[in-house]
Amino acid sequence: RLSSGWVPRAPDVNSFVARTNTCGELRAAHVGQEVTLCGWIQYQRQGLFLVLRDFQGLTQIIIPQDEAHSHVRKLLSNAPVESVVRVTGIVSSRPPGQENLKMPTGDIEVKAETAEVLNFCKKLPFEIKDFIKKSEALRMQYRYLDLRSSQLQYNLRLRSQVVMRMREYLCNHHGFVDVETPTLFKRTPGGAKEFLVPSREVGKFYSLPQSPQQFKQLLMIGGLDRYFQVARCYRDEGSRPDRQPEFTQIDIEMSFVDQAGIQRLIEGLLQYSWPAERGPITTPFPSMTYEEALADYGTDKPDTRFGMKIVDISDILRRLDVGFVQNVLSYPRGTAKAICIPQGVRYLKNKDLESLKEAAKSQFNQEIMDVICRPDGSLKSLLTKFLGEKQQSEFIRALNMQVDDVVLLAAGDHKRVCSALGSLRLECADLLEAAGMVLRDPAALHFLWVVDFPLFLPKEENPSELESAHHPFTAPHPLDTDLLYSDPTKVRSQHYDLVLNGNEIGGGSIRIHNAEQQRFVLEKVLKEDSEVLSHLLEALEFGAPPHGGIALGLDRLISLIVGSPSIRDVIAFPKSFKGRDLMGNAPDYVTPEELEPYHIHVSWPAAETEAKKN
Amino acid sequence: RLSSGWVPRAPDVNSFVARTNTCGELRAAHVGQEVTLCGWIQYQRQGLFLVLRDFQGLTQIIIPQDEAHSHVRKLLSNAPVESVVRVTGIVSSRPPGQENLKMPTGDIEVKAETAEVLNFCKKLPFEIKDFIKKSEALRMQYRYLDLRSSQLQYNLRLRSQVVMRMREYLCNHHGFVDVETPTLFKRTPGGAKEFLVPSREVGKFYSLPQSPQQFKQLLMIGGLDRYFQVARCYRDEGSRPDRQPEFTQIDIEMSFVDQAGIQRLIEGLLQYSWPAERGPITTPFPSMTYEEALADYGTDKPDTRFGMKIVDISDILRRLDVGFVQNVLSYPRGTAKAICIPQGVRYLKNKDLESLKEAAKSQFNQEIMDVICRPDGSLKSLLTKFLGEKQQSEFIRALNMQVDDVVLLAAGDHKRVCSALGSLRLECADLLEAAGMVLRDPAALHFLWVVDFPLFLPKEENPSELESAHHPFTAPHPLDTDLLYSDPTKVRSQHYDLVLNGNEIGGGSIRIHNAEQQRFVLEKVLKEDSEVLSHLLEALEFGAPPHGGIALGLDRLISLIVGSPSIRDVIAFPKSFKGRDLMGNAPDYVTPEELEPYHIHVSWPAAETEAKKN
Repeated sequence: RLSSGWVPRAPDVNSFVARTNTCGELRAAHVGQEVTLCGWIQYQRQGLFLVLRDFQGLTQIIIPQDEAHSHVRKLLSNAPVESVVRVTGIVSSRPPGQENLKMPTGDIEVKAETAEVLNFCKKLPFEIKDFIKKSEALRMQYRYLDLRSSQLQYNLRLRSQVVMRMREYLCNHHGFVDVETPTLFKRTPGGAKEFLVPSREVGKFYSLPQSPQQFKQLLMIGGLDRYFQVARCYRDEGSRPDRQPEFTQIDIEMSFVDQAGIQRLIEGLLQYSWPAERGPITTPFPSMTYEEALADYGTDKPDTRFGMKIVDISDILRRLDVGFVQNVLSYPRGTAKAICIPQGVRYLKNKDLESLKEAAKSQFNQEIMDVICRPDGSLKSLLTKFLGEKQQSEFIRALNMQVDDVVLLAAGDHKRVCSALGSLRLECADLLEAAGMVLRDPAALHFLWVVDFPLFLPKEENPSELESAHHPFTAPHPLDTDLLYSDPTKVRSQHYDLVLNGNEIGGGSIRIHNAEQQRFVLEKVLKEDSEVLSHLLEALEFGAPPHGGIALGLDRLISLIVGSPSIRDVIAFPKSFKGRDLMGNAPDYVTPEELEPYHIHVSWPAAETEAKKN
Repeated sequence: RLSSGWVPRAPDVNSFVARTNTCGELRAAHVGQEVTLCGWIQYQRQGLFLVLRDFQGLTQIIIPQDEAHSHVRKLLSNAPVESVVRVTGIVSSRPPGQENLKMPTGDIEVKAETAEVLNFCKKLPFEIKDFIKKSEALRMQYRYLDLRSSQLQYNLRLRSQVVMRMREYLCNHHGFVDVETPTLFKRTPGGAKEFLVPSREVGKFYSLPQSPQQFKQLLMIGGLDRYFQVARCYRDEGSRPDRQPEFTQIDIEMSFVDQAGIQRLIEGLLQYSWPAERGPITTPFPSMTYEEALADYGTDKPDTRFGMKIVDISDILRRLDVGFVQNVLSYPRGTAKAICIPQGVRYLKNKDLESLKEAAKSQFNQEIMDVICRPDGSLKSLLTKFLGEKQQSEFIRALNMQVDDVVLLAAGDHKRVCSALGSLRLECADLLEAAGMVLRDPAALHFLWVVDFPLFLPKEENPSELESAHHPFTAPHPLDTDLLYSDPTKVRSQHYDLVLNGNEIGGGSIRIHNAEQQRFVLEKVLKEDSEVLSHLLEALEFGAPPHGGIALGLDRLISLIVGSPSIRDVIAFPKSFKGRDLMGNAPDYVTPEELEPYHIHVSWPAAETEAKKN
C-alpha cells in the first residue's frame, strides 16, 4: 500500500514562482545566464550596486549606469533598504581581485537589465543590523522583521527539517500512524494548569490538555498499535521564564512494547533525524537510576559533560568527635556529602563562595561548609581541627583534591543535601566557565536515560499523603508490583526520562493496562475521585493491550540543537514570559456581548470597574 | 544540508516489540517458522481454534489438544472474545481443502506452542460485529472499540499516509518550511465564531483562531518564502451537522507567486499524495469563473460529474404574451431558467415533484413550474397554452428534452433563480439515483477550480453595506484594481476555490501586499476599525513581498477519498454535532475555585441556579 516515492537530493525552491534562482544560489558556473531574483535590499551604495537578500543568501546586483537603463537605475537607487525588488539580469564574474571569499555567491554579480520595486519599505523604527541588540520586547513587537535574520531563518528551517526526518523515521520506516487528537477536552484530575474554554452550554467548559496522554492510551486500546503526533500542548503556569503557554511535543505510544523497546526507538529516531552538522550520535545512550542520579549529581537530570560529582563522606566524618555531625548522621536518611571545585581558589571570588552558601541556605535550607586545599597540601576549614592527619588524607583522597581546589560540604537529610550540592555544582560550573575555565565542550552531546524513578512521592503540603511522581497511569516496576499493595512509597516505576546535557528533553513510561491495578492506584493510593476517569478505566476492561510511550519536548530539543539559550528562538511567534503576544497584543479585552453566548462575565475588581467607567 | 535518506519500500511494523509478525503477514512462505503474534481474540470455537486480529489482519490459531499443552488450551479456550493474547507457535499449511481464499493469511494457520493472556476483556455492552449498526451515540461513547473496526483503521492509516506524502512533496521536493503558529491569539475583526480562552489578566481573553491567516502572511513578510502547516483550526458555530469545533487544514503560503502558481502547486500536491487505489488524477484541473458556475450550476461548488445544467430560456419566454414573465424579465437581473430532469416522469413520483417545488419556495422564495414531455413528444405544462409550436420546439431543443423528461422552470432574479435551480438539480440527482438511475460514477474525480469571485458582497442584513466575500486580505483582480476606488461592488478578486465532486475542499487567494490598499479596503470599503489589525498594516509597510496561498480542508478531503459520508469517520475522536465528546463527557462543569484565577464567573439562569441549590 505504502509507496513512498523518489526523494530529491535538494528541494526545488524556485518552482511555481517568478524567480529563476534564489539569492544564495548563483556561482561561477552560472556566468552568462539571464536570471531573475526576488528579494530585499540589504544594502545599496551610491546608485552603483546593491546587495539583494532572501532566505538563502545574498547576491550583489550591479546597477546599470548607461542612459538606456536610467529607469532601472532610478528605481534601484531610490528604493529604501528592506524594500522588495525583482531584478532580471545577466550573471557575470566579478572583476579580478573583487571576489568575496566570505560570500558563497562572492565570485559573481548580476548586471541588472530590468527591475521592479514590488513593495517599498517605510523608514524602519531602528537599524535592522543592530536589531539583535535591541530589547527582546522590541524584537517581539516586530517579530516579522526579526524573522528575516539569518539566525531565526536557520532555526525555523532546521526545526522543520528535523521534524520531517522524525516523521520519515516513524511513518515510513517503522509504520507509526500520525493521529490527531482533540485539544478541546475536559479537565483531568489535578489539571490545575489547564486553560479553560467556555462552551455555549451554561457552566460547561472545555479544557486545553497538557498532553494527549489519555487519547494516546485510548488509541492503543483501539488497536492503532503505533501512534505518534507532533502535538500542540497547553499549560497555564502564569509567568515563568522560558516556558510557553503552548508548546509542542513529539508524542509517541506503542502497544506490546517494554521500556527497552521505547528507548531503542528513541535512540534510532534521534540518530536518524539529528542534523549532520551537529552529529553523529552514539547509541545506545547510557542509563542511570534515579537514585544514582540524585546521589551523584543531586538532580534527576544530570549534566554529565563534566565531573565534580557528589562524594559521600559520611564514613569519614562519622568518626569525628563533632556532636552536630554525629547527630545528623544518626537520622535514617542522614548523610554528609561534598563536591570538589577544581581550582576554586583561583577561579571563585570570596563573594562567589558567600553567595553560593547563601543560595543553598535560602533555596534548600542547607548549611554549607567550605574546605580549601592550601598550596602546601593542607586543608583550611572550620572542620580541620577535628580531622586527624589520617582523616585529612582520606578526605583529600575521597574528593581527589588538588592544591587550590575548594570543597563544598553539606550534612543533613540525603535528599536535601544532594539537591543543594547538585544545584551548587551547576552554579560553580557556570562561575568557573565565566571566569575562563574550559569545563564543558560546547559540541559535546551527553544523552542519558534516567530510570527507576519512584512511582509515588509524598505530597509537599501533606507528606502523609502520596501523589504520582509523574502521572497516575505510570506502571510499577515489574519487580515491585507486590510492594504496590504493601508499601507504595517503595515502589519504583517504569518511567524513564531522556536527558541531554543536563536538560530533560523527554519522558515516558510503560502504562498500567490492568483496570483493577489502575483503579487501586487512583482510589486507594492516590485517594482521587476516579469518576472523571471512568471512561479510561472502563476502556481498560475491554481488552487493553500492554502499552507504553514517550514524549519529547520539541522546543527545548531544537533550542539545544541550534545552541540557543531560549526556546523563544526556535518558535516563530513566541509569547513573552507573561504569556503575552507583543506583536498582536494578545490576550485582549472583549465586549460583554462577545461573552454572552458563553454565559460568563468578568469579575472586575472594584478599582478597575471604577477605572473603566472613567 | 538536506539529506533525505533512504525510504524503505514498506515500513517495519514489528520493530521494538515482542511479536515477530503481525496477524496480516503470514503466508505459505512462512510455513515451518516459529512466530510470535499479539492481538485480540476475534472468534474462538469449542477450544479447537481461534482467530487472532490486529491492525493488519486475521490469523487462525490452532489450539493444541494434547496433554502437554493443557495449560495453553485452558488459557485460550477460556479467554473471552476481544481479550488480548500473545501466542507463539509454528506456521503450518492448512489441511488441503481448508484454505480460505478470502483471507490473505488463509493458506496457513499457527499451531500454538505457548500463549499468554495479556488482558482479559469484560463482557462487551454489545456484540462487536453488529457495532456498526448501533446508534452513532453508542459508537462515540465507546470510540476505542469502534476504532478497532477495519474501516476506521483504514481511514486513520490512510489519512496519516496521505498527509505524510503531502509533507514529502512540500518539504522534500519543493522546500516548504513547516512552521507552527500560535493557537492562543486574539480576536480577529468579525471573528464571532472564535472560541475564547480566559487569561489570568483580568478581563483579557485569548481567542482560538479559525485559521493561521494573519500568521502566515506575517511569515511571508518575515522572509520565510514558502510556508506550510497541517494546522489545527477552531470554529465555534454551535450545533451544525458534519462540522467540528476543531478541524485541520493543510495551510500553505508562498511569496512571489501568482494564482496560476498556487494552482499548479496544489495540482502537483494532490497528484503526488493521492492514494494509488483512488487515482490517478489528471492535471491541470479545469477552471470555471464564479459567474459561469452560478449561471450553469447555481452554486460556487458545482458537481460536474453529471449534466442537468441550468439553461437560460429568457429569449424564448421573452416573446410570450404572459404579463408575469414580461414583468420579471424587465428587471435588470431578471431571467428565466430551467433544468431538464432526464426520465423524470418515470423516476420521480408526484410527491417528489411537489416537495421539490415546496423546497424552492421555502428556501429560496422561488416559484417553480414543471414541464413534462409526453410520449408523443408534446409538452404538458401550465405554460404550454402560451407557447406556439415553433416556441415549443425551440424550448425542447434548448433543453434537449426527450420523451418522459421533466423540466423545472423558474423566472425571477438571476441569483435567486440560479441558486434555486442549482439546489433542485442536486436534489433531483439524489432522487434519480435513489430510484435506481446511474447518474454519477462513484469512482469519478471531478476536480474544478472556481475563480474570479466577487471581492465584496452586499451584507445580508443591510445590502447598502459591503462585506468581504472571503476575507479582507484578498487582493483584487489585477484588471479590476481601478474599480476598487470607483465601484467596489464590481471588483473581482484573486480568490480561488478548489472543488471536488461538488464539495469545496480548499480555497485561497493572492493577498493584498500594499499597506495603502489594505487600509483603503478595511476603512473605506468595509468601514471596519483597522486598529485591531494595526500590527498587520504596519508589517505591510516594512517590505512585504507579494504573496498568496491556500488552505485545503483535510477532514473533508480524506472523507471524500475514503468515500465516507461524514468527516467524523476520518477523525479519531470526533465531537457530536452538539460539540460534545460523548466518551469523555466534555465540555463539563468546573468548580468556582477553578474559575477564580481567570476572574470570570458563570451567569446561571435563575432556574438553573435554583436547581443547583437543591
